[in-house]
Amino acid sequence: MLHIAIMGFGTVGAGVAEVVRMNAASIAEKTGEEVNVKYILDVRDFPDSPYADKMIKDFAILESDPEVEVVVESIGGAKVALEFTRRALQAGKHVVTSNKELVATHGKELLSIAKARGVNYLFEASVGGGIPVLRPLFEDLSANQIEEIVGILNGTTNYILTRMVKGGVSFADALKEAQSKGYAEADPTADVEGIDAGRKICILSNLAWGKEVLPQSISMEGISAIHLQDVDIAAKAGYRIKLLGRALRLPDGRQTAYVAPHLVPENCPIAVVDDVFNGIIIRGNAVGDVMFYGRGAGDLPTASAVMSDVLDAAAHRQNRRDIGWNESAEITPAGEIPMKWYLRGSFSSEDAKTLCGEVEVLSSGAVITGALTEAQTKDAAEKLGAAAMLRVL
Amino acid sequence: MLHIAIMGFGTVGAGVAEVVRMNAASIAEKTGEEVNVKYILDVRDFPDSPYADKMIKDFAILESDPEVEVVVESIGGAKVALEFTRRALQAGKHVVTSNKELVATHGKELLSIAKARGVNYLFEASVGGGIPVLRPLFEDLSANQIEEIVGILNGTTNYILTRMVKGGVSFADALKEAQSKGYAEADPTADVEGIDAGRKICILSNLAWGKEVLPQSISMEGISAIHLQDVDIAAKAGYRIKLLGRALRLPDGRQTAYVAPHLVPENCPIAVVDDVFNGIIIRGNAVGDVMFYGRGAGDLPTASAVMSDVLDAAAHRQNRRDIGWNESAEITPAGEIPMKWYLRGSFSSEDAKTLCGEVEVLSSGAVITGALTEAQTKDAAEKLGAAAMLRVL
Repeated sequence: MLHIAIMGFGTVGAGVAEVVRMNAASIAEKTGEEVNVKYILDVRDFPDSPYADKMIKDFAILESDPEVEVVVESIGGAKVALEFTRRALQAGKHVVTSNKELVATHGKELLSIAKARGVNYLFEASVGGGIPVLRPLFEDLSANQIEEIVGILNGTTNYILTRMVKGGVSFADALKEAQSKGYAEADPTADVEGIDAGRKICILSNLAWGKEVLPQSISMEGISAIHLQDVDIAAKAGYRIKLLGRALRLPDGRQTAYVAPHLVPENCPIAVVDDVFNGIIIRGNAVGDVMFYGRGAGDLPTASAVMSDVLDAAAHRQNRRDIGWNESAEITPAGEIPMKWYLRGSFSSEDAKTLCGEVEVLSSGAVITGALTEAQTKDAAEKLGAAAMLRVL
Repeated sequence: MLHIAIMGFGTVGAGVAEVVRMNAASIAEKTGEEVNVKYILDVRDFPDSPYADKMIKDFAILESDPEVEVVVESIGGAKVALEFTRRALQAGKHVVTSNKELVATHGKELLSIAKARGVNYLFEASVGGGIPVLRPLFEDLSANQIEEIVGILNGTTNYILTRMVKGGVSFADALKEAQSKGYAEADPTADVEGIDAGRKICILSNLAWGKEVLPQSISMEGISAIHLQDVDIAAKAGYRIKLLGRALRLPDGRQTAYVAPHLVPENCPIAVVDDVFNGIIIRGNAVGDVMFYGRGAGDLPTASAVMSDVLDAAAHRQNRRDIGWNESAEITPAGEIPMKWYLRGSFSSEDAKTLCGEVEVLSSGAVITGALTEAQTKDAAEKLGAAAMLRVL
């Protein structure tokens, strides 16, 4: 019997309890071990919950119970969650989390405590919700040198952009729709401004190259400044506008990561990832491009990933998963790496060519440049009087 | 130092040697252990190969060398490969393979020898080439009850269909093109008639539900009878024709698997998987649909998957991966399960409605039925004088 404790009985915590309940028999059959949710820690009262008898308010109870082997942290944030995760690891318990903020900002410390105590700290659910992506990255692609990771990492903004592209709805109206459907929070800043995607691309980068990239060290740009006009021009020219998190290691060894909206060519598999779905491409030097696609959020999908970590931790009680990042990465600002850009204004394509060199003309007053740095592009955009400037994948 | 032996120095075997060479440093960094290819077994001579000093012709050399911990079987077929795999496992060596024929037809026996000897028998590369899909299925989705697996499992036929859909090229001409590009073999039967995809869907089904489905027990239909006319009608109505392997477990417990061409709605993520790429959707009862996409063949992609198994076997020297299938599955013939069908002929949609009930009219003389068994559909098709009958996803 594997006894686990769940900390935080919100969407994810309740989803984990539900997955254990509904799939108890099949989990026991596959792993040869039954899972028991022994405690659920939450400050709130849930008198009518079927789990009422498991609810506790004092962390020390689960911390001091030697029977609890795995702790699920679904509290969120980096305050209480940080303290309880530290203490649970110190107490020799495996910890599993969906908390991308905590992993992105304090993962290095928590992984080093886990290593010292010989336990697992696993966080598959922190990126891509239910989509298997972190374990495939560090396990299935371990014989590759990872060259690039690029993906749609945030379902809320992808829903909004899909409504703008397919429904011709403005950003403001699409955001309201997303809020009314429960896809966006009342304060949508973390999603809309790219902060959530930024935490996730940092975690992916950390695992891919073993060096810490902190969210505050990378540039994050959201979608609130995207105009329908650019969505239309892009669509007619065979591109979709998507908010991408992207991490690169260049052949010269430079490393970068950033979040920004991009024009994505229609024939790229992530161009057709719509609505609240996520899609993440990983490029390895042997495997080429592989993509992982599915629901990037939601109670049961996220719980599926959390539970895979719980079972993985149990399967690796003795020989822990040696993942982690020790040193800090040296990050080249994304703007310094030459990339293609989309410019739109009332300029002539001849003027654009004069200033940017070779360009692809999308329509009158809309071009895609060759590979330029952000400073070069800004300079050209200013001289051309461009009204919009976006990256191109 | 991890010493491995490669059996069979063809495309896959040479790819494995190449991946070990080109990624030696990064593999050692990630796993903390260097990999050494100690022997390469092949009946042929390779005097000019950089690996000439490792070539052996006698299996007994690697079999009796206690230093060799992992054996890569890339011989193919189910004769010599079967004998050497049995003997290597009996000798206490982990075996890793890309050989779908062997795994699909003799996996049960080989996995049980592996279990008895406490070693791993792993075969990630047997399905989807370099795409991580088997380990994600048995590990990342282990908290789910798997409901369905459906995918484009064969790159050769997907290339041919893509040329028919996008280039308007006939089956015969597209096959010739595929052969001239090296995507199809001189004898393309195993690919074109769905046998290769059939072996792969059996392996996926075996892992998903732990019961053996043998290729000879399922129906396999290829793409040689697909007409351009149906490709066109489907495309205009928002469908792409794809060769799919599909395995289902119904809520009533019945289980089926089959290979057949299908009309796939454009908004389904596998509809846009083109050329030699593979895409596999797995539906779990917690996670919903997840898709894995990438190159389903090729030397380095396949070697990427083989090497992930080599490293996984090494990481699980003590606590082996307990995967396998013991009993035989009871398979309901796919035709007995009601599904939607496409019918094309010179009938009127009124006649189609009379015979099939509710239908979706695609164009004059082309309809999609509601859920019908194969026998019901054949009966209706006969009465309507239909010239084409295809499944619809």
